Amino acid sequence: MIELSLHRPVAAADVPAWDMETDVAIVGFGATGACAAIEAAQAGARVLLFERGSGSGGASALSGGEIYIGGSGGTDAQRAAGFEDSTEDFAAYLKAAGGPCADDAKCDLYAREALAHYDWLKAQGVPYRGNYLPGKHIEPTDDSTLIWSGSEAAAPFCDIAKPAPRGHVIAHMGWGGGRPLVDVLERRARALGVQVVTDARALALIKDGERVVGVVMRIDNRPHFVRATRGVVLATGGFAFNEDMRRRYCPETLRLSSPIGDQDDGSGIELGVGAGGDAIHMEQYFTTCPWTMPEPQAKGVFVNQMGQRFINEDCYHGRVSRCALDQPGDRVYLLLDIAHFDQPLEMAGMSIAGTGETWEEVEAELGMAPGTLSATMAFYNDHAREGRDPLFDKRAPILTPLDQAPFVALELNFATTYFSFFTLGGLRTSTDGEVIGRDGKAVSGLFAAGRCTSGLPAWGHGYSSGLSLADCTFFGRQAGRRAAAG
Amino acid sequence: MIELSLHRPVAAADVPAWDMETDVAIVGFGATGACAAIEAAQAGARVLLFERGSGSGGASALSGGEIYIGGSGGTDAQRAAGFEDSTEDFAAYLKAAGGPCADDAKCDLYAREALAHYDWLKAQGVPYRGNYLPGKHIEPTDDSTLIWSGSEAAAPFCDIAKPAPRGHVIAHMGWGGGRPLVDVLERRARALGVQVVTDARALALIKDGERVVGVVMRIDNRPHFVRATRGVVLATGGFAFNEDMRRRYCPETLRLSSPIGDQDDGSGIELGVGAGGDAIHMEQYFTTCPWTMPEPQAKGVFVNQMGQRFINEDCYHGRVSRCALDQPGDRVYLLLDIAHFDQPLEMAGMSIAGTGETWEEVEAELGMAPGTLSATMAFYNDHAREGRDPLFDKRAPILTPLDQAPFVALELNFATTYFSFFTLGGLRTSTDGEVIGRDGKAVSGLFAAGRCTSGLPAWGHGYSSGLSLADCTFFGRQAGRRAAAG
Repeated sequence: MIELSLHRPVAAADVPAWDMETDVAIVGFGATGACAAIEAAQAGARVLLFERGSGSGGASALSGGEIYIGGSGGTDAQRAAGFEDSTEDFAAYLKAAGGPCADDAKCDLYAREALAHYDWLKAQGVPYRGNYLPGKHIEPTDDSTLIWSGSEAAAPFCDIAKPAPRGHVIAHMGWGGGRPLVDVLERRARALGVQVVTDARALALIKDGERVVGVVMRIDNRPHFVRATRGVVLATGGFAFNEDMRRRYCPETLRLSSPIGDQDDGSGIELGVGAGGDAIHMEQYFTTCPWTMPEPQAKGVFVNQMGQRFINEDCYHGRVSRCALDQPGDRVYLLLDIAHFDQPLEMAGMSIAGTGETWEEVEAELGMAPGTLSATMAFYNDHAREGRDPLFDKRAPILTPLDQAPFVALELNFATTYFSFFTLGGLRTSTDGEVIGRDGKAVSGLFAAGRCTSGLPAWGHGYSSGLSLADCTFFGRQAGRRAAAG
Repeated sequence: MIELSLHRPVAAADVPAWDMETDVAIVGFGATGACAAIEAAQAGARVLLFERGSGSGGASALSGGEIYIGGSGGTDAQRAAGFEDSTEDFAAYLKAAGGPCADDAKCDLYAREALAHYDWLKAQGVPYRGNYLPGKHIEPTDDSTLIWSGSEAAAPFCDIAKPAPRGHVIAHMGWGGGRPLVDVLERRARALGVQVVTDARALALIKDGERVVGVVMRIDNRPHFVRATRGVVLATGGFAFNEDMRRRYCPETLRLSSPIGDQDDGSGIELGVGAGGDAIHMEQYFTTCPWTMPEPQAKGVFVNQMGQRFINEDCYHGRVSRCALDQPGDRVYLLLDIAHFDQPLEMAGMSIAGTGETWEEVEAELGMAPGTLSATMAFYNDHAREGRDPLFDKRAPILTPLDQAPFVALELNFATTYFSFFTLGGLRTSTDGEVIGRDGKAVSGLFAAGRCTSGLPAWGHGYSSGLSLADCTFFGRQAGRRAAAG
């Protein structure tokens, strides 16, 4: 009996019989797998696209369908709204967003190619209304195209790169553009002759010497040995749903309760490492809490349990959330005055922890020492009235005094408040999607993209909405094209 | 020509000829390798102990020779000084010090066995004067045995486990007890018949099927194929000197300029992962800056560039330093009044960034907004005079008002100040020192201990002096004994 393991490739010589043969085998049918399949098929390869679930989607279908695009002077939507966007500024932002984990080569390539990628998405049939929706939004509630989706206009990013909105959302009424985005890509892939096999779970890779030559898929309750003459593409997503992997590589997420994804189990990372690939930046994760809704809340001020501010709250909501997790203790507070208070979203799980006619009363209700939170707010308000934030450089129009009594402190508790998260670490890949080993050399025949790799959204503190789908779709294409080249 | 790589074991069938044969081969002759060798030899195994350098030592010989020991009612030195130390408190502290990365099984085992380990060290010939040196010391300047070497008496640790001093230092006049510690262990190993081969660098492991059966060593400019009938023990240290590995797994350390170690290049981690082992918590690192010297400086207050405090400065100097690295920007400040100022150590590279007759003047010299640092210090002093620190629970006697003009701010700049560091992530191992694969199973014939593994000092924010040598010596022994058992 042949042993099948995510951690150890099967030797081709031990394959009892090939059940299927293709040029390119792709594992995972989210946006990454779909884009890889389209490119591989267009390059003339036979493509088998395997999906563990019963249909396409993955974590991509649970997203807002927002793709981070800019550079080269700006997209149609950016230019129509009066935003120029140079490739240099775009690359500089991507690198700043990648922080200490940034892959400069990926940032530079994507900054150069993003506009062409946008055109490609349209050519596949992804519709964009082309308009700009001002303000700060997690996702558009209508079918608008262009929104501010990151920390572009906030310090320190606005001082590193000229800001522009870059979140491009599929034309789709309301939240949840990810599903229709994958639908468009699926139609295109099928039209190109991509063979889709659902309810198919990867069990092991197959290697002939140093080269990956296939994959073993569990279909109809038995292993199918799939020969892939040109290559295997891993597009299986992160490991937010694999508690054992989180414990070993990303234990900070054990404090959070709401993984996002489609049971992302890290299997592609395990397959890739088992075949000789390197996994990097495995401790990185994205997290956010919908604290900017209802909209007036976006003008609130965050303090930690010492009553200290810790971030310019005008940056991306996920950056604020990630920095919140860095604070000592198990919670932070969002402070609001009556002019900016509305009932928080039920789903957010943020509770009212203190109220008062003065900030001193709120401070006392929270059990903080006199002169902590109240001094923070006095200092903040004094400067906000002058349009300044000397501490964190929060800027207008988000910068607003919070001085209209009564006041309230909402508690964001890391264990009980809705902090959604997914993992960002994964396989190291080249800009062509080759899986790179610890020796710096490509693993022959093996490719990967999306959240089973470390890509554009490499650093939790720098995430912007649309970065992951940009990475999935663009580098998914790269991997598919490279795999088809054999 | 056979390919030799850290990343890929050689197949035993491809070994042209065995140059050497032993029962247990140990790679790395620091404290870990020495202890593994002693135990393996005492268990009756033939032992070959390889060292890349020209003599024993490794990072251990550069340390203070301090070992973290407690539990079971307390050591002779602890009890003589009036400290009881329960196994439960010791284990609780070890787990708190491991934070989200703690290996509970290792903590529990070591807490139970540490006293027996202390006796074992003495039996090998390690001398301890047996006395207690009160106060806070990085290392004793005399030949004292017992010092406070971590955050035991500081919040939140003192509320988790009853505090006791647990840093046990070899009797040795002045700093640098690591060298004599390794010397004692080396003498013992040689007396037991351990064969030492220096100037020998590991090139690859050798596997027969799933079992590690040897190691290829570069000796006299050619590969030597070493057969190890019972097992190979990796004791090669961390990867603080491998910039490529730091970039991939621990990029935060790229901000720091002073790795500690003996060219620790992560080769054992690469060998272990290449043979099927798992590497965990690779982003973790220890760092410290000698800011507690001269001694009055230990009573200083730290603020970040916003003029906010961020830690109870009475905890371990390395914990303060690690938390400093978490602050926004590229520097933090150590604030002192004239009663606590002395010329900082030349080696520390801390410069005077601001002075003043009032804290307001210091604040202005640092370019901070009025009412930031000065308010922090007014609040701190008001409460310190009452013996309280409502923000961070810093405690007497370190808690002291800083209110005697003139005042000074010393700058600790992450790039230019002496922040020494070493890495904490590494191979996942069982309590017996078996290298564990991603599938959770032991890699047959392969063992590891010390800083090429993730062990007792798993979390940078929780490090205490002596934790690494405790891990190296105790789990080095475990690995040696387990390897000898075959």
